[in-house]
Amino acid sequence: MTPAKMDWERVKRTGLPEAVYGEGKSLSQLAAILADAAETGRRLLVTRLTPERFQALPEELKVRLDYDEESRTAILGEAVIASHGIVTIVTAGLADMPVAGEVARTLAFSGVEARCVADVGVAGLWRLMDSLSEIREAEVVIAVAGMEGALFSVLAGLVAAPIIAVPTSVGRGVTEGGHVALHSALGSCAPGLLTVNIDNGFGAAQAALRILQRGRM
Amino acid sequence: MTPAKMDWERVKRTGLPEAVYGEGKSLSQLAAILADAAETGRRLLVTRLTPERFQALPEELKVRLDYDEESRTAILGEAVIASHGIVTIVTAGLADMPVAGEVARTLAFSGVEARCVADVGVAGLWRLMDSLSEIREAEVVIAVAGMEGALFSVLAGLVAAPIIAVPTSVGRGVTEGGHVALHSALGSCAPGLLTVNIDNGFGAAQAALRILQRGRM
Amino acid sequence: MTPAKMDWERVKRTGLPEAVYGEGKSLSQLAAILADAAETGRRLLVTRLTPERFQALPEELKVRLDYDEESRTAILGEAVIASHGIVTIVTAGLADMPVAGEVARTLAFSGVEARCVADVGVAGLWRLMDSLSEIREAEVVIAVAGMEGALFSVLAGLVAAPIIAVPTSVGRGVTEGGHVALHSALGSCAPGLLTVNIDNGFGAAQAALRILQRGRM
Amino acid sequence: MTPAKMDWERVKRTGLPEAVYGEGKSLSQLAAILADAAETGRRLLVTRLTPERFQALPEELKVRLDYDEESRTAILGEAVIASHGIVTIVTAGLADMPVAGEVARTLAFSGVEARCVADVGVAGLWRLMDSLSEIREAEVVIAVAGMEGALFSVLAGLVAAPIIAVPTSVGRGVTEGGHVALHSALGSCAPGLLTVNIDNGFGAAQAALRILQRGRM
Amino acid sequence: MTPAKMDWERVKRTGLPEAVYGEGKSLSQLAAILADAAETGRRLLVTRLTPERFQALPEELKVRLDYDEESRTAILGEAVIASHGIVTIVTAGLADMPVAGEVARTLAFSGVEARCVADVGVAGLWRLMDSLSEIREAEVVIAVAGMEGALFSVLAGLVAAPIIAVPTSVGRGVTEGGHVALHSALGSCAPGLLTVNIDNGFGAAQAALRILQRGRM
Amino acid sequence: MTPAKMDWERVKRTGLPEAVYGEGKSLSQLAAILADAAETGRRLLVTRLTPERFQALPEELKVRLDYDEESRTAILGEAVIASHGIVTIVTAGLADMPVAGEVARTLAFSGVEARCVADVGVAGLWRLMDSLSEIREAEVVIAVAGMEGALFSVLAGLVAAPIIAVPTSVGRGVTEGGHVALHSALGSCAPGLLTVNIDNGFGAAQAALRILQRGRM
Amino acid sequence: MTPAKMDWERVKRTGLPEAVYGEGKSLSQLAAILADAAETGRRLLVTRLTPERFQALPEELKVRLDYDEESRTAILGEAVIASHGIVTIVTAGLADMPVAGEVARTLAFSGVEARCVADVGVAGLWRLMDSLSEIREAEVVIAVAGMEGALFSVLAGLVAAPIIAVPTSVGRGVTEGGHVALHSALGSCAPGLLTVNIDNGFGAAQAALRILQRGRM
Amino acid sequence: MTPAKMDWERVKRTGLPEAVYGEGKSLSQLAAILADAAETGRRLLVTRLTPERFQALPEELKVRLDYDEESRTAILGEAVIASHGIVTIVTAGLADMPVAGEVARTLAFSGVEARCVADVGVAGLWRLMDSLSEIREAEVVIAVAGMEGALFSVLAGLVAAPIIAVPTSVGRGVTEGGHVALHSALGSCAPGLLTVNIDNGFGAAQAALRILQRGRM
Repeated sequence: MTPAKMDWERVKRTGLPEAVYGEGKSLSQLAAILADAAETGRRLLVTRLTPERFQALPEELKVRLDYDEESRTAILGEAVIASHGIVTIVTAGLADMPVAGEVARTLAFSGVEARCVADVGVAGLWRLMDSLSEIREAEVVIAVAGMEGALFSVLAGLVAAPIIAVPTSVGRGVTEGGHVALHSALGSCAPGLLTVNIDNGFGAAQAALRILQRGRM
Repeated sequence: MTPAKMDWERVKRTGLPEAVYGEGKSLSQLAAILADAAETGRRLLVTRLTPERFQALPEELKVRLDYDEESRTAILGEAVIASHGIVTIVTAGLADMPVAGEVARTLAFSGVEARCVADVGVAGLWRLMDSLSEIREAEVVIAVAGMEGALFSVLAGLVAAPIIAVPTSVGRGVTEGGHVALHSALGSCAPGLLTVNIDNGFGAAQAALRILQRGRM
Repeated sequence: MTPAKMDWERVKRTGLPEAVYGEGKSLSQLAAILADAAETGRRLLVTRLTPERFQALPEELKVRLDYDEESRTAILGEAVIASHGIVTIVTAGLADMPVAGEVARTLAFSGVEARCVADVGVAGLWRLMDSLSEIREAEVVIAVAGMEGALFSVLAGLVAAPIIAVPTSVGRGVTEGGHVALHSALGSCAPGLLTVNIDNGFGAAQAALRILQRGRM
Repeated sequence: MTPAKMDWERVKRTGLPEAVYGEGKSLSQLAAILADAAETGRRLLVTRLTPERFQALPEELKVRLDYDEESRTAILGEAVIASHGIVTIVTAGLADMPVAGEVARTLAFSGVEARCVADVGVAGLWRLMDSLSEIREAEVVIAVAGMEGALFSVLAGLVAAPIIAVPTSVGRGVTEGGHVALHSALGSCAPGLLTVNIDNGFGAAQAALRILQRGRM
Repeated sequence: MTPAKMDWERVKRTGLPEAVYGEGKSLSQLAAILADAAETGRRLLVTRLTPERFQALPEELKVRLDYDEESRTAILGEAVIASHGIVTIVTAGLADMPVAGEVARTLAFSGVEARCVADVGVAGLWRLMDSLSEIREAEVVIAVAGMEGALFSVLAGLVAAPIIAVPTSVGRGVTEGGHVALHSALGSCAPGLLTVNIDNGFGAAQAALRILQRGRM
Repeated sequence: MTPAKMDWERVKRTGLPEAVYGEGKSLSQLAAILADAAETGRRLLVTRLTPERFQALPEELKVRLDYDEESRTAILGEAVIASHGIVTIVTAGLADMPVAGEVARTLAFSGVEARCVADVGVAGLWRLMDSLSEIREAEVVIAVAGMEGALFSVLAGLVAAPIIAVPTSVGRGVTEGGHVALHSALGSCAPGLLTVNIDNGFGAAQAALRILQRGRM
Repeated sequence: MTPAKMDWERVKRTGLPEAVYGEGKSLSQLAAILADAAETGRRLLVTRLTPERFQALPEELKVRLDYDEESRTAILGEAVIASHGIVTIVTAGLADMPVAGEVARTLAFSGVEARCVADVGVAGLWRLMDSLSEIREAEVVIAVAGMEGALFSVLAGLVAAPIIAVPTSVGRGVTEGGHVALHSALGSCAPGLLTVNIDNGFGAAQAALRILQRGRM
Repeated sequence: MTPAKMDWERVKRTGLPEAVYGEGKSLSQLAAILADAAETGRRLLVTRLTPERFQALPEELKVRLDYDEESRTAILGEAVIASHGIVTIVTAGLADMPVAGEVARTLAFSGVEARCVADVGVAGLWRLMDSLSEIREAEVVIAVAGMEGALFSVLAGLVAAPIIAVPTSVGRGVTEGGHVALHSALGSCAPGLLTVNIDNGFGAAQAALRILQRGRM
């Protein structure tokens, strides 16, 4: 088994803590990384860890992990408290909640508690309009939507804060896999909308942290 | 030169008059079709006829044609008067106007005068909201938009009439060619949105005519 | 668990009742939506509900649902009676029947009983021709076909009514997934053909309802 | 200038004469090939030779060539007379005629005179039905169509002869470039339909010659 | 359950017997079709019938079927004897054998016994060369290959008979799914190569039958 | 000519001034927008304005415009002075400079003067390393690269500031059009990288302005 | 069961021993090939052999095979000793190790022992830099990376040896399947980078062997 | 005008001299790079320089350049003499010669004179077979082919030397742009074939130089 080369210095270089992507690694590699971090007293975030894979980890590791099933994330180590600013997560539908959860948990790992405005897709525009003044208080807005991703353009035209689109793989027929939502975000007619990869809640949170810590490092 | 087989009986079968697609035919084929129609007293609509190609037609044909440069359409024969109902064309941006023009001219050829609500893309949502009550009077709504096509979903969630999306090839980068707008229309989260091919203003108008004449044939 | 924001006002805005897409929601979310609707006496249509997922719902919900396995739809609430007009569903092959079923059930939920002309793909053209006079009685025609979707063009050239193509994911090799059938519908040489997303029987039915209720709201 | 290695023995190996694809070669390479063939008394077919490129050839070569502008083909050498059987070319629209012309000229070069049934696309089905008994006399049918290519399936269901689909690049929006017509041919529900590359009239004719000469070599 | 509309007259129209595609139909639909054919004394070919699905058919049907696992085909009815000519199937690798089997069984159903030259991919060119004289005796050649499909071009340059390429879904990475093999066949530099859909052994056999019966109907 | 509906209130809603995309509008539409802005004393940025189109504008407009050929942008109105923070633009090659220029000009229009570190693609890694300490002073980094876009990942691993990737259409063969650079940015293994559409220097600058103005509105 | 035509002469023609791709062959075909090789005393490498398939082989074969689970390879026959030169395998992440293992095992089968520098993706550039002098000792470098494949360009700019990129299918969202890594390798701005198919560790090793044996045959 | 950062140290790092890609740079940028190199006595290779662009360079530069129109390359500085080994370029058709020319000129710039075996596509296999013994003398083989690229697999099965495929953009219909040739090379069933980007003769030559200089640095 090839041991991982963890990038523990990343936090110094980029202000962002090391994290572990849970897919594509064998369970024993994952356990070794976690055991090593636990032993050396390091905090660690694991993403894309299915319930089945979490259950299969050694008991002594599981008890030390804070695991969340919806977002499929595990956190090793104490909670940190920080207050960088307000991040608001806006989702188009219920099926987008796991990705929104990954955003929230990644932010929480770095001490940022996010608000969530859920299920406000634009086919029923009043739902979004009802929450607009709350959304406008955010310092960073993270919009999570699949299918045709029309939420991104409408929202970016209504708020002044930095706004990050997270297209999700929620869809069917031509929108299956999330590529239409992604392209809608990238090709939006609204000014200054930023985008990350499909389902990449972790990346959106990391980008938000970069923005929030601007001027603080 | 191969002569065309015109489908003059189409109006009996489908209620829709024969028309001629101006691209992909030689000028002499086009002139022959028009001359034959003129001689036999038939009305005819020509679409996708560039100004250069129109100018190159024989003088005696040109004087008999009502040509419109923005929509690139020519009409042979008298105007007809009809009143099937209200069709409203809604466009996202100025660059979508040529396609909207093709819709309007095709409807006009069949005696339906369309209204147009232009330049109301959702990045500036108030523009659409200001026109909403006018749009809601329509019996058929035709929405014309390129880029990410977010207009389609917002509009379909706000009106009760049959609504037809015409994605346009207006776009750049990932939205170049109109495929994202098309997929946004097809994959919309709004209920009962209908779609035609990219830039196909003619087809949308024909479909609107089918809807308007329902119960009249 | 994030609660859903149901759009119960949709029927006022668009004339179309709220419905629930059964995929991508957890069983508990689905059950909560249904329980809430049942309690408040609302009718509800659930689509894309697999037999396995239906079976896993709480017993007290299941007994109140009218479930149809072929179309994978469930209806909560009393049947309604209405008579908007004749809708005829035309299918190319047996494998297209589940999608045709979704069309029929969605229409039935709104009180419209559809006719079905099944298995009349154009490779055996006489099958379609035998049913043509029946199809021509329809006020709206919904054509359901996968593979190369040649049925759409042939049918649209033969009927005068509004016609909606529902491409299905039936196919293999280059036609796998339904994209060729979709593109054949969009790029058809027949005039005024309208299209919805692949397998989107629900959307086609909603669009038909918009057309049927034209002039009635 | 690199000289070409002509495959003059091909006719012995495959029964098909050598030909020259006119695109992608410099004019001087083309002229050298033709001059060499003329000198050694060989017959030669040149395809995809635009009028501009033909005009730019040396005068002494041009006078020896039988050039056809619609099909963009040139023939060097005497006409041959043969009678392998009846080939019928069926086209969907006028814009498909240049490709049909390439089929006819390639057949003519090998002494086979083809019949042509033009402009019988299935949106006006009666046009095809009127010509059906004539088409059924053919020993090989070559169907030429662009856009959604629905002609291929309808025709293959109606005739017993070997049938070769030539998808053309005629189309717009989703059908631009001919890929939908190609996929419709490949994915057809009709049995035993064969296909060649987009716009490849030459290849279809060569295949027809292989079929016609079966049992004769 | 919707009953199938079998096209029993197809053999009169096209010389090709009706067959049933085994995927996408429910087991009860399949059983009904077979029972009806058995009762009325009709012969029938079923393709794409997995061993699991075959096993699940009613016993009284299974005993009447000649089932072949490799090609996943079942034949109902007596063997027929015919002698239309020699068809030779040439395959690139072992993984192409199931598709080659579908070709052979479809031909056998119509009384044509095919030869098979297996595992002669061009990376080891001598294997093909050793069999060349045998292949040249064929009246129709059917080449079956996946991956990059180089066999098609090499073979078409060496034989004079009509040649049909059947690209298979054998491949990995860029060649996964068979699209590269398909495009290599369509875009081949060899003259007169014909192509069918990916894995469509049935279609290739039907096309070969059309060629073999030329002049006989 | 349809008049434009300018979104002059956008600056209030989003803090971003209205701008005009120069492509897809007729010259007369463009001139009318500019004349209207000039008359009412409004500042305006025009992007994607080719030198040819700029030259064709009325003289009285041209003298009032500050036009930059490399970035194809024109500015109407006085320069503004502001100091939101340091933005550094990093480019991979010379061919990326026009897009970098669009970033710089858009920022300048809002009073932000950007630094530029040019021609530091990672194939010659020392070029980037030499500039690293300068880049690390930035509050926002905008990386501009085409081809395979490897610069994005390397840079995002080295800096802590918010970082926006602008993939450019610079490339050939598989990288033609910029889609590989775009996908490399989206799929980067480096944490917290944000992306805009291909060649969308304007959008990247708008996003940077959103970040810079955070906490100031 | 069709017997395989093994290319035992390949080693004479190309210097590369025959090997067997384990997917797409039935277990009995695989067992027959192995039994034949064992009987005739031939060495053989089997790739893409899953643990499940290996376990299902006959016991008498299994005991003779050296099976490696991570790389999914089996070797029949004695180890050979050779010393062609130094090959160094460089991987971006842990998930790339199975493909790196296929490279190493294929080289080992031909007597070349490879070095491996693992988990040095460019998001943490120092990891690569720390190993650079070791990598520069190689006579052939094989770089293995998925996702956006930025490692390829950085590495090719730093080493002088022949360098072969093996893109892996490691990725998610836009990078799923390995196509972005593949295109990054092909479109790299670094000079003289060579590429093989996605996950094709076997092919990269074969190419390295061709290079190492240059001048020795 | 942004000045270029030339990588003059590349030759030390990688053994490969710096070169300039002629597309995407302004003429003045190109002239500045060349003038600077000329002044400092450096040799330089310019690729993708069209005749029109070459003609438009300043006279004093043009006289110092050795320009080749077919390969669109210019060389500044004296010829160098070296003898690394034999490289043989094999091309499928005449239309591939410009890319083959780019290979040859890039090699010549580094003192390697290449042999060329032209116009030996596999549709006429004897042409390749006639040259095989000559090709087998090469230490590196570079195969240049467009369309379906079948040459790559056949050749790689016949020679033992390292072999590099250069797919070209020569093609039409499905093979237009060179992607099928590229995928045929990547997905080849022949062992150890290496690939570069479409039309990338420069890259193939650089890779060959890396191989030839192995063991010499």
